[in-house]
Amino acid sequence: MSADDHILGIDFGGTKVALGLADRTGKLLATRRLDTDAAAGAGQVVSRALAAAAGLVAGERSVLGGIGVVSPGIVLPDRILLAPNVPGWERLRLAERVSAEFPGVPVTVGTDAKAAALAESTWGTLAGADPAVFLSLGTGIAAAVLVGGRVLTGAHGAAGEIGYNLRFPQDCAGFAGGAAPLEEAVGGRGLGGRASEALGRTVTAGELFALARENAEAKELVTAALDELSMHVANLAIAFDPERIAVGGGLVRSADVLLPALRERLAAAVPFPPDLVPARFDQDAALLGAVALALG
Amino acid sequence: MSADDHILGIDFGGTKVALGLADRTGKLLATRRLDTDAAAGAGQVVSRALAAAAGLVAGERSVLGGIGVVSPGIVLPDRILLAPNVPGWERLRLAERVSAEFPGVPVTVGTDAKAAALAESTWGTLAGADPAVFLSLGTGIAAAVLVGGRVLTGAHGAAGEIGYNLRFPQDCAGFAGGAAPLEEAVGGRGLGGRASEALGRTVTAGELFALARENAEAKELVTAALDELSMHVANLAIAFDPERIAVGGGLVRSADVLLPALRERLAAAVPFPPDLVPARFDQDAALLGAVALALG
Repeated sequence: MSADDHILGIDFGGTKVALGLADRTGKLLATRRLDTDAAAGAGQVVSRALAAAAGLVAGERSVLGGIGVVSPGIVLPDRILLAPNVPGWERLRLAERVSAEFPGVPVTVGTDAKAAALAESTWGTLAGADPAVFLSLGTGIAAAVLVGGRVLTGAHGAAGEIGYNLRFPQDCAGFAGGAAPLEEAVGGRGLGGRASEALGRTVTAGELFALARENAEAKELVTAALDELSMHVANLAIAFDPERIAVGGGLVRSADVLLPALRERLAAAVPFPPDLVPARFDQDAALLGAVALALG
Repeated sequence: MSADDHILGIDFGGTKVALGLADRTGKLLATRRLDTDAAAGAGQVVSRALAAAAGLVAGERSVLGGIGVVSPGIVLPDRILLAPNVPGWERLRLAERVSAEFPGVPVTVGTDAKAAALAESTWGTLAGADPAVFLSLGTGIAAAVLVGGRVLTGAHGAAGEIGYNLRFPQDCAGFAGGAAPLEEAVGGRGLGGRASEALGRTVTAGELFALARENAEAKELVTAALDELSMHVANLAIAFDPERIAVGGGLVRSADVLLPALRERLAAAVPFPPDLVPARFDQDAALLGAVALALG
């Protein structure tokens, strides 16, 4: 890879796909966004994303030095584990599909939240913090922890997958039963679904947070979700004793409500309460994480 | 330190103090145990422990190459943080007190659970496991996590202090209010206290577990505590994705009930359920951890 080469990053999320062409300093030169359309399955969104990627690369007339691709879950050569939000995603050969579109270009794949942590550590708000936690609060709920500047993967790549957390002592749901208890309770999709049911019309999690300023029923849902989420974030901070936590993902659009609630609980519960800050790259943390992975 | 030198280890617990003289392979040559008598305060137990240590060393007529001392909490030169179980413990200058008794001998201090993790990793059931978790379930509740063979300390030495974990979404107790919610609920002291109240006589946690085989009220208390504890252990395993968890501390005396309850919950909730085993050194893990610390 030469110093002038560009890097293509692709971030497959449960709701959106982000694509970006970046230079080696992590500066995004051009980006594209697509809807995932999760209900339509894995095949179509990968095809659309690769077509958009090809257009993006051609438009910049750049030499492509590497490609980083991130997704929720554990991206293996022949499948993707722990990523239940898009039907068929678990059977994807993601690196192979990308390589077929860009022959000869090195492809690196990884988990979105872990890559985002790397981007925030390299170029963003987690630089110099040790340990540091990246919290991804969107359609899915996950965390990634950096110790000595390296992302903890765990024994199977599953460290930080707190969407599977149990919520109460008698909680019998859980991974083995196909459930992701915390994610279903406070993730964007679960929250939006419960809000839509309660309010009798389709409401996203973001709209719910906005509604909560005037609607008592919406406020109650938001308060319950924040109570629940903040307990798990506090317990995570107790486990790792981080210096700083950066929050990214779609729910950060409601940072005015989200961040004070998390900060209050951290101050009450954690022996040494960490800083809690919005991720520098906000919606682009995982996309830049894909770029950081490719730069390796 | 020469190869023949012996190492003195001292493990100050909330209920017992363990002392041991070991060789450099971690083999205990002589041990002593004292009651902490926590209610009588910090000064008296340190004095008694140091007198017993002097006797132990004199008895073995050995050359003392080093001393390791462990305690719950974060042992600093002029105080000990996060160790509320013995009144006055927070103001102890522990290393200084030990050095005054054994002038010229190097003294290393540390947190009991973290030292125990090191001993299990060096000589016990956590050897070769990465990541690995040591769970200390006794008067206090704490965990220690090894990544790449090194114990994670966190930014302030407080990583793994899960005794402070919040128990439910609206839990307003917590460290800032002087509470250690999970430890008070499932630690040996809290459990014994609740059992004594319910059964109308003084009962230790160990006795409660034994009683639960025939007494419905005791069984209910034990079941509630195990449900609660196992939720937190499962969430800890989700956060770290460890290969193996070793359980030590006083509650392991009830391993026949404790371990199956924890295993069942790990299997239900954790994407990649870790092995769960009793610590090799059982009640001596922290004592050998003190020795391991001194061997550095």
